[in-house]
Amino acid sequence: MAQRYFLTKNDFENKSITTDDKHHILKVMRMRSNDFIEVCYLKTCYLAKLSINEQQISYEIIDTLAQRRSVDVTLIQGLPKGNKIDIISKYATMFGVSKMLFVQMDRSIAKEKNSDNKIRRLNLITKEAAELAHRFDIPEIAFFKSLKDIDFKTFDLILLADENEKTIMLNTVVKTTDLDKKIALIIGPEGGISDSERVFFNQKNAHIISLGDNILPTEIAAIYALSYISVKNTELF
Amino acid sequence: MAQRYFLTKNDFENKSITTDDKHHILKVMRMRSNDFIEVCYLKTCYLAKLSINEQQISYEIIDTLAQRRSVDVTLIQGLPKGNKIDIISKYATMFGVSKMLFVQMDRSIAKEKNSDNKIRRLNLITKEAAELAHRFDIPEIAFFKSLKDIDFKTFDLILLADENEKTIMLNTVVKTTDLDKKIALIIGPEGGISDSERVFFNQKNAHIISLGDNILPTEIAAIYALSYISVKNTELF
Repeated sequence: MAQRYFLTKNDFENKSITTDDKHHILKVMRMRSNDFIEVCYLKTCYLAKLSINEQQISYEIIDTLAQRRSVDVTLIQGLPKGNKIDIISKYATMFGVSKMLFVQMDRSIAKEKNSDNKIRRLNLITKEAAELAHRFDIPEIAFFKSLKDIDFKTFDLILLADENEKTIMLNTVVKTTDLDKKIALIIGPEGGISDSERVFFNQKNAHIISLGDNILPTEIAAIYALSYISVKNTELF
Repeated sequence: MAQRYFLTKNDFENKSITTDDKHHILKVMRMRSNDFIEVCYLKTCYLAKLSINEQQISYEIIDTLAQRRSVDVTLIQGLPKGNKIDIISKYATMFGVSKMLFVQMDRSIAKEKNSDNKIRRLNLITKEAAELAHRFDIPEIAFFKSLKDIDFKTFDLILLADENEKTIMLNTVVKTTDLDKKIALIIGPEGGISDSERVFFNQKNAHIISLGDNILPTEIAAIYALSYISVKNTELF
């Protein structure tokens, strides 16, 4: 399978590669003229053939790559400590999340600050993860100071992962017919969900779900649900 | 939920805590007499009440904790590079794997060596992961130089994750009735499965499965399948 690159508007329109990907193609992958790559722009990917001329890279599009519809899952993630947002961004991207909203919740020890810098860093992580996973798009990332700033009306199905819930599993809540809806998946920070947040989510018609008998740490909990939804999604093909 | 500790035979029989967990209880968790912990030994866990007397820790068992049966999944993991075995050991433990067999496969860049040292290190990782996840046992770990050294006859259902396979998903292969069987899950190393390994696994009656449309890196691929099997398992309760 060819290496995949998400291109800038400029590089896509000029059929060239001038960004950091140029270094990757020339120095890391050591590619040559006539090697194939996959280039993606605006949620479409193409098979392309390289021409490398004195360190200048251009390409010719050979074919448009087929893609299947994926489920629209927005992760609403309680802001965790330290570099856990890096782990979440990387793996949730690979497991097919559509968007990630990091939000300061009652039990978040980390505070929402320097978000522009964080988004710049996370965009590099999600671009690389999306390329490695051969996704057709890069998930969007946003930070919020409060749950109240998120518009929950845009979601058709809201799932709230709750470690206190032990019986309602994903298969009783997520039906095949839900898979063309907009799904929100809420994961609390390290300390979990507070009582007032439970009331808030209940008012938003969130469905409480279990993520199994084991307690999963916040940085990896989302992919439990994303995996199940991905398997379930193939029933629509 | 109380902090969980897996005990040595000696500490379980003496109703004491003398291992590294002692430091964790006294210095990290700063617990006191009459605080509750959960102690586990031989796949059973108990609620226990601490007595701390001049840095000596003993405990009294209050109750046996209820547990549900889990699926018996052995991960057969192509030996990956660097610290990826740490990531696999940690997260596969949290996602409910029963055993992990690391095996040098055709495309493994890493070689099987110093396995005793590695097992000692990984046993610390899996113990901590099992305690955090509130498992009832710690998965076993073993290393193999060759796939031929693994006895595949002990498994009732063998799953082979193959990135070339795009249509056979877990839900068409893993049925509810399979969940009381012994399942093997084979994940290749970074470079994937070789052609001769495909022939070998075919002779072992392995079922090829897809892990979805995205390409997952070897250190995280297993938990895609473990998540689905965990959700499916609850249909037996």
